[in-house]
Amino acid sequence: MKIAISLPRLKSHVEALAQFGKNPDGRGITRSCWGTAHEEARGWLLGKMTDAGLETRVDQAGNTFGRLGSGGPAVMTGSHIDTVPEGGPLDGALGVLAGLECLQTINEARQSTRLPLTVAAWSDEEGRYGSLFGSRAFTGKLDAAAIPHMAAADGERLVDAMARAGFNALEAPGARCDPKAIAAYVELHIEQGPHLDKEGIPIGVVEGIVGIRRYRLAFIGEPDHAGTTPMAWRKDAFLGAAEYALKAREHVVKKGSGKSVTNFGRIELQPGVSNIVPARALLLQEIRELDGKILGRLDRECLALARTVARGRKLRVAVEPLSRTEPARCAPRVMDAVVAACDTLRLKHKRMPSGAGHDAQNLATITPAGMLFIPSKGGRSHRPDEMSDWKAIERGANTLLHTLLRLASS
Amino acid sequence: MKIAISLPRLKSHVEALAQFGKNPDGRGITRSCWGTAHEEARGWLLGKMTDAGLETRVDQAGNTFGRLGSGGPAVMTGSHIDTVPEGGPLDGALGVLAGLECLQTINEARQSTRLPLTVAAWSDEEGRYGSLFGSRAFTGKLDAAAIPHMAAADGERLVDAMARAGFNALEAPGARCDPKAIAAYVELHIEQGPHLDKEGIPIGVVEGIVGIRRYRLAFIGEPDHAGTTPMAWRKDAFLGAAEYALKAREHVVKKGSGKSVTNFGRIELQPGVSNIVPARALLLQEIRELDGKILGRLDRECLALARTVARGRKLRVAVEPLSRTEPARCAPRVMDAVVAACDTLRLKHKRMPSGAGHDAQNLATITPAGMLFIPSKGGRSHRPDEMSDWKAIERGANTLLHTLLRLASS
Repeated sequence: MKIAISLPRLKSHVEALAQFGKNPDGRGITRSCWGTAHEEARGWLLGKMTDAGLETRVDQAGNTFGRLGSGGPAVMTGSHIDTVPEGGPLDGALGVLAGLECLQTINEARQSTRLPLTVAAWSDEEGRYGSLFGSRAFTGKLDAAAIPHMAAADGERLVDAMARAGFNALEAPGARCDPKAIAAYVELHIEQGPHLDKEGIPIGVVEGIVGIRRYRLAFIGEPDHAGTTPMAWRKDAFLGAAEYALKAREHVVKKGSGKSVTNFGRIELQPGVSNIVPARALLLQEIRELDGKILGRLDRECLALARTVARGRKLRVAVEPLSRTEPARCAPRVMDAVVAACDTLRLKHKRMPSGAGHDAQNLATITPAGMLFIPSKGGRSHRPDEMSDWKAIERGANTLLHTLLRLASS
Repeated sequence: MKIAISLPRLKSHVEALAQFGKNPDGRGITRSCWGTAHEEARGWLLGKMTDAGLETRVDQAGNTFGRLGSGGPAVMTGSHIDTVPEGGPLDGALGVLAGLECLQTINEARQSTRLPLTVAAWSDEEGRYGSLFGSRAFTGKLDAAAIPHMAAADGERLVDAMARAGFNALEAPGARCDPKAIAAYVELHIEQGPHLDKEGIPIGVVEGIVGIRRYRLAFIGEPDHAGTTPMAWRKDAFLGAAEYALKAREHVVKKGSGKSVTNFGRIELQPGVSNIVPARALLLQEIRELDGKILGRLDRECLALARTVARGRKLRVAVEPLSRTEPARCAPRVMDAVVAACDTLRLKHKRMPSGAGHDAQNLATITPAGMLFIPSKGGRSHRPDEMSDWKAIERGANTLLHTLLRLASS
């Protein structure tokens, strides 16, 4: 019960990792998977794992592991060390470094556990080349045929990026694990939302990770002259997309679960010049929801709404599904272990969904999996000023420590 | 009264000019000013002017002139021979070739006029490097200091483009004319809108050319995580722009002159990714209206509306004016001459504004100026299937002929 992580050591590790890929002028950290900064960070991490007395391994998908103990199925923890462009120091990094800190603490305390413990840094969680790449490979979800075609938004191919880092992308499906070798998975992460910070609650016990639907809606009208065509005659694709976005937003808010969200992150108008009425509006939409039934219903209802709006403006609409992930429920056994750890440490907690995707959703398909959140200051994430309190980080790491001890001992 | 243009000759000229810059696969004509196809077309045109017995001249701004007669101030007609990318065979070309046909007809008929007649092909009317370049230079509106910085959207500089065509762009302001040398200006053009075609009226007597306001509205919110930020907390710049566009469109329709139009041809969201709430939405808007007072009022009211919408969504809005042209009224004397020509030819006509910009709006600032329109099939323009009837073209050219005779004889 007196066992506890070392905050000074964890803090020094967070600060050291934040140097890899650090941009000048306060523009945060850019540590894209397979890039030079990422590979240097991987080398640094492997050194710290070795220092902690862990046995290290890097698999064919570039996942980095540090293991404490041998035999039986392992209790796993981890997260990722890649960042979004101009990201912050905690998203992913904290889960890996807190996991390392827990294993090092257990090792140094010579605390014995029934099961071995492994900390993982999953590759390309942020999905520069494809969402949750490493954990997809590890859980056998990688489509081998798609690998030669995977590429970043700027066109750089995954095979080239991995080759430069010393990996053969075509071998990545070989990272698939034997599920019998895994006993459970638990991941610590900043909330990336405002709830814990706002309510002053130190620990979020994640009940599940939302499913996400992404599609591109193409509203199609006519490219008329914007000076000479009477307003009533125009078939303006942009105004159709605008009306749809406003109505779909209201629909998701009013008819969803109360926690359902939607976003329109991108729109392109064609031909895209001032004096021609937009003939095409390509609108990117995503919907997120923890309940699979509600998610499916919102998906269908939004697409029906798009058709209604288009019809009302004499436009056509075409829908191209881009991606589809199903909601992942966290395992009660893992949630219970987190709650018990909070009780041990006398920390308040709150059950909540994760609105963001995490590697835990892939692990949940092969093993009992769960997550715990600590507050994000102001709910900020994916930006340079992403932060938490060091006290909050210490509470989270100690909660992870007790959760791992419980899962590895039961 | 029996004098009339030759439709076979005019048709052969329209068809010959349409070969310069003709794209394969029916993708229309691309004859950008100063490009190879344009310069070859200029050479062809100068040859046809000489064949017609006109005295030719090319000024420092690349305007091409053919003159019939000498002495006193000239009655001018004309249009332009450049096209938009993948444009059609009539926009601009018809006004130049019908003008040439009229002068050739008058010359061959040995019809004497009190004043000399000039046909002009104004350079870069479509504004690849700057809107209505040639007629701006001719009417003394070119900003000499801006010339070195003028460039096409793809970055090509005007000075380089003109140099390749054998011109020194820095000398273009020297094309400025002496207004006393011009007696009047009248331009024949396809309507580029649906009214004449729809109503079966052969001639539109243009009352004026709309003024245009163009600005970029930047709605500014916060780049929150699109999965973890509650819907009610978001400051979504795109939804602000969408609401504004729908409301501004309604405002212009309901509170304008009845013929006021507005368009949103382009929008860019930043950071522009699926999983981040748009922090910035850059919306391009233009408003067109013939009445300067109404145009100014709509301009002010739309910007006030933008601020109201932004405030309601906790966004900020910044407005960057891009361009501003004032409405140009056509001269009663020129309109009367067109109407009289219609009466002579027993053609129905209709008074109407021009919703598109034309070189005539620059000429209107130095001389009595006007325009006549003929129907555009289906109101189509700026596209490969831009057309009119050959009968309609003949009627238009003969109306131009009688208008010129009247203006040059009075």
